[in-house]
Amino acid sequence: MTARRVSDLGEFGLIARLREQVTTSARVVEGIGDDAAVLEGPGEGRLLLFACDTIAEGVHFMPDAAPEQIGHKALACNLSDIAAMGGMPRAITVSLGCGAETPVATIDGIWTGMRALAAAFDVDLAGGDTHRSPAGLILSVAIVGEVERELCVRRGGAKAGHFIVVTGGLGGSMLGKHMTFTPRVREGRWLAERRLVSAMIDVSDGLASDLHHVCKASNVGAELFADRVPIAEAARQLAQTGARASTPLGRALYDGEDFELLATVPPELLDEAASGYHATFGEPLYVLGRTTAGPHVTLIHPDGRTQELTASGFDHFG
Amino acid sequence: MTARRVSDLGEFGLIARLREQVTTSARVVEGIGDDAAVLEGPGEGRLLLFACDTIAEGVHFMPDAAPEQIGHKALACNLSDIAAMGGMPRAITVSLGCGAETPVATIDGIWTGMRALAAAFDVDLAGGDTHRSPAGLILSVAIVGEVERELCVRRGGAKAGHFIVVTGGLGGSMLGKHMTFTPRVREGRWLAERRLVSAMIDVSDGLASDLHHVCKASNVGAELFADRVPIAEAARQLAQTGARASTPLGRALYDGEDFELLATVPPELLDEAASGYHATFGEPLYVLGRTTAGPHVTLIHPDGRTQELTASGFDHFG
Repeated sequence: MTARRVSDLGEFGLIARLREQVTTSARVVEGIGDDAAVLEGPGEGRLLLFACDTIAEGVHFMPDAAPEQIGHKALACNLSDIAAMGGMPRAITVSLGCGAETPVATIDGIWTGMRALAAAFDVDLAGGDTHRSPAGLILSVAIVGEVERELCVRRGGAKAGHFIVVTGGLGGSMLGKHMTFTPRVREGRWLAERRLVSAMIDVSDGLASDLHHVCKASNVGAELFADRVPIAEAARQLAQTGARASTPLGRALYDGEDFELLATVPPELLDEAASGYHATFGEPLYVLGRTTAGPHVTLIHPDGRTQELTASGFDHFG
Repeated sequence: MTARRVSDLGEFGLIARLREQVTTSARVVEGIGDDAAVLEGPGEGRLLLFACDTIAEGVHFMPDAAPEQIGHKALACNLSDIAAMGGMPRAITVSLGCGAETPVATIDGIWTGMRALAAAFDVDLAGGDTHRSPAGLILSVAIVGEVERELCVRRGGAKAGHFIVVTGGLGGSMLGKHMTFTPRVREGRWLAERRLVSAMIDVSDGLASDLHHVCKASNVGAELFADRVPIAEAARQLAQTGARASTPLGRALYDGEDFELLATVPPELLDEAASGYHATFGEPLYVLGRTTAGPHVTLIHPDGRTQELTASGFDHFG
């Protein structure tokens, strides 16, 4: 039986299908399948990073979300993509869809939120267009950034035996963090500049899912220690009060939109990475496992039980 | 009274409002308000062009549109923006919104249409993401291109006394051309490389509206000769059969989405531009008026009557 509807493929199947069908020129260093596309480009020794993300009312934010937070999130997702490449964000274009009845104050609020974040990361709002949207607000942001050729961090660089690290607590982001997070641009750049990480991704689909992305691209497996997964306070709250049965660990593994950086660190660099990171940012770099020869991704419980960790995190079409 | 709803501002008011609120760094040569943003960038003597456009079901294409044409149009609009700067398109990212029930064949058709056009213009499909859309298909394409610093054509370069030219017949695009047009990338590049044009824009909002954009940016006026406006056959058809009373000239002046290039040519270069263009492309470069010291944009009828030409072309929020 062949897939007939988008729901049969899911979000990743849809992207995979596109990826298979596309051939690119030698100008494309990394195409579909990383956080940002990597293009030969801005002068000697530099690569151009190029990404886009769309957020839609009712899907990525609720109709009653604060406009400032909507503008913030639309840009923050894109900054996070550049962060995951070890890059420096430069400029964005924005495509805003709204209805004729949308209050002007809402639009102003969106720009206010976006401008504040753009200023904080020295990103230029270089272009924009508006269009009528038949169903609520929709914001597409495209971003260009830069990275030195030798510092660009991709998903596929992990080798077996590297440590798996993450920049912050995970899970329960939907209680608020997904609208207000500060993208880890400085942290990603810090790790890349010192060549401390072999692969990196931002946790947008969920830890389990994004770890699978890294493992697949790097052709490695992974062992994750359950008691080393940093669980956000929001994950505990949600596990207690959420409608569906869940555990704090489950939320940390499968909730999406934390936008922390998940990276792999060669063993000889772990001490430098962890201590330097803590000294610089005042927060720990959480070490939660190691990559293996693969191919499995295994969760190891404190009592020694092991279980295969499936990728199925949040899927917008699921 | 202050504007309270987006419909009070209109599409251009919305963009103007954003433009007023945004400050950009020295890296931005041209920000919001041209066809593409112009950034300092890809090495010595070159500028980076960066633009985005979104097309949505029910707004920019009908629900029964052929998927291949939807994919074609989403890319073609963006290529047209690069063409209007005299630039060379390089790579795109695509953000596709669809429903869980969207047939996979529809998605495949969109990629097929987009791929064919990308191949024709040597553009890389470098990145993509998908998301659930609550109301029909929506496609955002962002594009990066390049142009030599001295060849970049902006809206604001026209001086009084330049000839106003356009690359093709206008009006009635909604009968089909808006889905199938070939963006004037080669033509725009040809004009720019020979430094034949002082200002350029693509006719997306309508001749009257886009001419106003050029005049405003260049601080000039214009005289348009009514009988020199090239009227597309579709404009005549639509004038006869359309529900609202209209004339072929009215359609040529006010219909949007022709995606022809509208440019200004210094008088000493007109002969070279017109004859060279015809020899190269086998089509005329239509000369339809001249810029003036301004500020008015005037339509001159064959009988000598003159009338002020207002900008009000197609407005998605009107």
